[in-house]
Amino acid sequence: MKGFAMLGIGKTGWIEKDIPKCGPLDAIVKPIAVSPCTSDVHTVWEGAIGDRKDMILGHEAIGEIVEVGSLVKEFKPGDKVIVPAITPDWGAIESQAGYSMHSSGMLAGWKFSNFKDGVFGEFFHVNEADANLALLPEGMDLYAATMLCDMVPTGFHGVELADVKFGDDVCVIGIGPVGLMAVAGAALRGAANLYAVGSRPVCAQVAKEYGATDIIDYHTGDIVEQIMEKTKGKGVDKVIIAGGNVNTMQQAIKMVKPGGRIGNVNYLGSGEFVTVPRVEWGCGMGHKTIVGGLMPGGRLRMEKLAALITTGRLDPSKLVTHRFKGFEKVEESLLLMKDKPKDIIKPVVIL
Amino acid sequence: MKGFAMLGIGKTGWIEKDIPKCGPLDAIVKPIAVSPCTSDVHTVWEGAIGDRKDMILGHEAIGEIVEVGSLVKEFKPGDKVIVPAITPDWGAIESQAGYSMHSSGMLAGWKFSNFKDGVFGEFFHVNEADANLALLPEGMDLYAATMLCDMVPTGFHGVELADVKFGDDVCVIGIGPVGLMAVAGAALRGAANLYAVGSRPVCAQVAKEYGATDIIDYHTGDIVEQIMEKTKGKGVDKVIIAGGNVNTMQQAIKMVKPGGRIGNVNYLGSGEFVTVPRVEWGCGMGHKTIVGGLMPGGRLRMEKLAALITTGRLDPSKLVTHRFKGFEKVEESLLLMKDKPKDIIKPVVIL
Amino acid sequence: MKGFAMLGIGKTGWIEKDIPKCGPLDAIVKPIAVSPCTSDVHTVWEGAIGDRKDMILGHEAIGEIVEVGSLVKEFKPGDKVIVPAITPDWGAIESQAGYSMHSSGMLAGWKFSNFKDGVFGEFFHVNEADANLALLPEGMDLYAATMLCDMVPTGFHGVELADVKFGDDVCVIGIGPVGLMAVAGAALRGAANLYAVGSRPVCAQVAKEYGATDIIDYHTGDIVEQIMEKTKGKGVDKVIIAGGNVNTMQQAIKMVKPGGRIGNVNYLGSGEFVTVPRVEWGCGMGHKTIVGGLMPGGRLRMEKLAALITTGRLDPSKLVTHRFKGFEKVEESLLLMKDKPKDIIKPVVIL
Amino acid sequence: MKGFAMLGIGKTGWIEKDIPKCGPLDAIVKPIAVSPCTSDVHTVWEGAIGDRKDMILGHEAIGEIVEVGSLVKEFKPGDKVIVPAITPDWGAIESQAGYSMHSSGMLAGWKFSNFKDGVFGEFFHVNEADANLALLPEGMDLYAATMLCDMVPTGFHGVELADVKFGDDVCVIGIGPVGLMAVAGAALRGAANLYAVGSRPVCAQVAKEYGATDIIDYHTGDIVEQIMEKTKGKGVDKVIIAGGNVNTMQQAIKMVKPGGRIGNVNYLGSGEFVTVPRVEWGCGMGHKTIVGGLMPGGRLRMEKLAALITTGRLDPSKLVTHRFKGFEKVEESLLLMKDKPKDIIKPVVIL
Repeated sequence: MKGFAMLGIGKTGWIEKDIPKCGPLDAIVKPIAVSPCTSDVHTVWEGAIGDRKDMILGHEAIGEIVEVGSLVKEFKPGDKVIVPAITPDWGAIESQAGYSMHSSGMLAGWKFSNFKDGVFGEFFHVNEADANLALLPEGMDLYAATMLCDMVPTGFHGVELADVKFGDDVCVIGIGPVGLMAVAGAALRGAANLYAVGSRPVCAQVAKEYGATDIIDYHTGDIVEQIMEKTKGKGVDKVIIAGGNVNTMQQAIKMVKPGGRIGNVNYLGSGEFVTVPRVEWGCGMGHKTIVGGLMPGGRLRMEKLAALITTGRLDPSKLVTHRFKGFEKVEESLLLMKDKPKDIIKPVVIL
Repeated sequence: MKGFAMLGIGKTGWIEKDIPKCGPLDAIVKPIAVSPCTSDVHTVWEGAIGDRKDMILGHEAIGEIVEVGSLVKEFKPGDKVIVPAITPDWGAIESQAGYSMHSSGMLAGWKFSNFKDGVFGEFFHVNEADANLALLPEGMDLYAATMLCDMVPTGFHGVELADVKFGDDVCVIGIGPVGLMAVAGAALRGAANLYAVGSRPVCAQVAKEYGATDIIDYHTGDIVEQIMEKTKGKGVDKVIIAGGNVNTMQQAIKMVKPGGRIGNVNYLGSGEFVTVPRVEWGCGMGHKTIVGGLMPGGRLRMEKLAALITTGRLDPSKLVTHRFKGFEKVEESLLLMKDKPKDIIKPVVIL
Repeated sequence: MKGFAMLGIGKTGWIEKDIPKCGPLDAIVKPIAVSPCTSDVHTVWEGAIGDRKDMILGHEAIGEIVEVGSLVKEFKPGDKVIVPAITPDWGAIESQAGYSMHSSGMLAGWKFSNFKDGVFGEFFHVNEADANLALLPEGMDLYAATMLCDMVPTGFHGVELADVKFGDDVCVIGIGPVGLMAVAGAALRGAANLYAVGSRPVCAQVAKEYGATDIIDYHTGDIVEQIMEKTKGKGVDKVIIAGGNVNTMQQAIKMVKPGGRIGNVNYLGSGEFVTVPRVEWGCGMGHKTIVGGLMPGGRLRMEKLAALITTGRLDPSKLVTHRFKGFEKVEESLLLMKDKPKDIIKPVVIL
Repeated sequence: MKGFAMLGIGKTGWIEKDIPKCGPLDAIVKPIAVSPCTSDVHTVWEGAIGDRKDMILGHEAIGEIVEVGSLVKEFKPGDKVIVPAITPDWGAIESQAGYSMHSSGMLAGWKFSNFKDGVFGEFFHVNEADANLALLPEGMDLYAATMLCDMVPTGFHGVELADVKFGDDVCVIGIGPVGLMAVAGAALRGAANLYAVGSRPVCAQVAKEYGATDIIDYHTGDIVEQIMEKTKGKGVDKVIIAGGNVNTMQQAIKMVKPGGRIGNVNYLGSGEFVTVPRVEWGCGMGHKTIVGGLMPGGRLRMEKLAALITTGRLDPSKLVTHRFKGFEKVEESLLLMKDKPKDIIKPVVIL
């Protein structure tokens, strides 16, 4: 079969590979809609997860099942399914502890285009199919559905990590597609004032549609100062980090109230230390909780988030600014994520 | 001063009383908008809290401060304020434990028209003014604001007790004004399918506007069966009880999944036992958590919920079906709550 | 193979059955120490879970693996293992939601001697071996180890459900073996005053050794009154129910403070309703949380609790008042649990 | 009156001051036992909280009430009381949010010897006496009682922040008096393996008595490597930081599992940034929660922790290695904390 792959750091191309084998608990799936992710860009051009040779890229896909293992009970060939980016080993110790995304090792619930072939092939392999796939609801828009694989659960997890409550003032730092879903999720979780930090007009526009009350542009001044001015010196209750780098934590700590929480869902690709400013962290005693975490995956998560679309609570298709048709467009869509023209949020390729 | 009072069980009337005295931490407030509550009806005509002689009724008011005690720092005469129905003793042991509504005794955070005069007087007394009042935001609609005293915080507390999470299927039993706020709160907290149990068309209409996906009418069949049919036998993740009686718990337990939660915010005025069906409660082992609780009051709560109105997340004024002008209309508005014509949800009197 | 079985309601006996088959994820285990449980008594003589024909009894066993399926990676024949009474389906939706004991249906994590043969056979079957078995730590006392299957996790889960915190006053109602583990767990979790309700001297003695500060004997007066006297009218912070019947909840509600929690781990075998007293439950608003739940099972749970024994925090072998040797003694030990002579807490049979 | 004060950075001495005035909610207390704290040392000789002129030092005292304000209901002159180091403003917004230690500003629940005179005077002032004082239980050992003011609640808060659960493997970094209380608290909360990092023999000895299973001496090698070896490469579930500096977080992050928590109760007096190692923090996605917080104070906290002493769960008097008699010994005891001879853990002066 054909697949679009990372050939090595900085190099991509189309390759031929064997169709993956299906174990007793697994499924083989043919993609019908895929989306490239900024992490694919980090993986290839920044070597964020180290070198990989001829690894098929991609971890966001809606697909159709072509084969299931002998122990799979709930799915059959022909079923159309949502495939989460994170497909845990559900029996692992870490899953039993409530952290399935770290099953069998930190971050090891992330398998596609990390340590096995991703979804940009003619076929791909899904482990523990019964536990990791969800039926695509009848009639669901494919563009919206594709956002369920990674953008929605990651952005919404930021909201969960920050533990947004009724009436909280919230700042979302970074309004790429994940940050925009954090904005939508915070609004849907009862945030009051919702400050979205970003500058690209296309993103700012969508942030407002998703519920941001204020756009904070870092080009127009220090974002902490802007937040402090808007909150009359009080700061915000919660911060969600969905962009920036290892030093973004400094701003988050400075703008959050004692007793507040900072939820990070930004993959930090470089820098030795995340820097937490000592004094503003209350000299270690300010109860400013810091937590960062990979999205929870698996079937239940997909079903719950899909239900938000089918009930009209959420429309993630607003993220999809670029729409392509045909398997061969995968390459173009990935390069688009790499080059990031100013009107892009997220591309989707329908196969 | 004049006040509209409970004279004894089953009897109401206008009485004369001294203006209340202001202690060092307190405020004296003149109401500018009030709303009668179903609890006032229970108090007077059902004797729900026992007999009371010449007690001024009412616990939902927006007011203007006329006097503050010597230790009050954050408010002054002339300030317009939201007065929560629950005004805790913040230093009490129970408040320190996180249950300020039970400060100095179970339910004892509820003072107005319970064990001191309520807000249907020319003036009323507020304990711990700095901690219990919130400034009325500039320009806030008075009808909406009045709903912040009890309807919004009580309905939203049902959502908190039930711990609604992203994508949960939720059933709200009872769609009077509190239940409608539970519907709005559940939608605002990320519920997916939201089943509202009720029958009056005016309430059903508003429930849909607040986010209910389905109206379940108990006149058309057993509500558990209806829920089970709609959820394909799975039941719901969470139930909020905002109406019914001591036996409503049976339906709630039957329709909720193992691991689910039931949040009760309905005042149960009669019956010896709340009845939990043994088998459906998993013979004591089904992890169907049951919790009922009085709304949290105080300043922070009012500020947070008010911010949901000022940011446009919530418009509780839809509850206010009957609008009156003039202090003397308090009586008529209370009788309306008692008689409950079919087009009423909630009356407000502007003074 | 031979097994000691329920032949029908009220009847037990030795039967012959085929050795169970091992699926790819499973293990076949030979018991080396077993203990009968009060639930076995309920199952047989009260028909608590309905009729069963020729079902091998027992769900508490330490064993030796004799066969593993092709997908099992972490265990091999010859390994000695702790087998939890609850062996979830870890990929199930309910497990993903954090309630593995209800995987594939309420209480359905409980399989042994419920809907498949139990551990009182020459061999028994364990589903998802990697996720459900734990290695028996080198040198662990077999009597103590056998208590890890059900008594320790169930009693400790009561403590978790009640959410005992530093300095809490706690009442444990019922001090059979599960209640005694609730006492030990509450002490180990930071309870201050720890009231143990029971009357049998053997149990009272062990309760004190496990950390009870006071024994409350219901023969000497109403237990609520006794608790209220000892707490100077304040009541306790938390209650754990490990005995009694559907009306025991009344006492629990009456003795717990507003904001308190009641954790039930008692299997309620009869009665239509668990009765919650309305007034003392704060008319539905007292924040007295009620939760009952089956013990969490699986490998991680067993490893964590076993570590409490190996580090000397807990010695559950004090529960084992009657010690037998030989497979044929299983029958005698079960009858002992049925007849409950006054000096028994728990028997163990070493095979 | 006389008091032992900080005269300026690096200088201490005895001064004369007016007896503090008692507001309506307050109490004036005469100390009967006091203890100097390492924070007093930081305050004076490191200028940790900035300069202070003639500020009486000390924040750990047991005392006798000599005067109460007109609104104080629960205490009277002559009552012997435990005075917590942290005395919140209970009506403040932050207290309503559950963070009373930050009432009226980050860390501002800490008043004694921070922004008002401390307890090393003939008399001292306590705000909100009803809410902040606790009766000294009849017959409680004064040495143990004095540890309730700061050492016990701070060390135990580390355990709460780290959220130690049954069977967790826990590392406590730093075994001065606070760290030792973290060890005792972790054992009392159900930790299994409990690694205590420190080197002074007097502390190591007491750590073992309080429940440490292993002493990790940083002189004998990297502590992360030692922990990893002891845990067979798995790391620990929770870390409590009670010593070290801004770089100690690096070790904590490296040794904790994904899904683990780090609770800091060490006052970080210098350094620009707390450094969180990016890769071991899962590139921002490892669910290694970081939280640091000032101890909760107030009456309820004191009562709950005192109950652990009266019920025999905890004996903090083991911390008191140096015992003095007479007000004038306060100076000597503070210099002892500064010079830290190798046999000291904590001194107490009985007045």
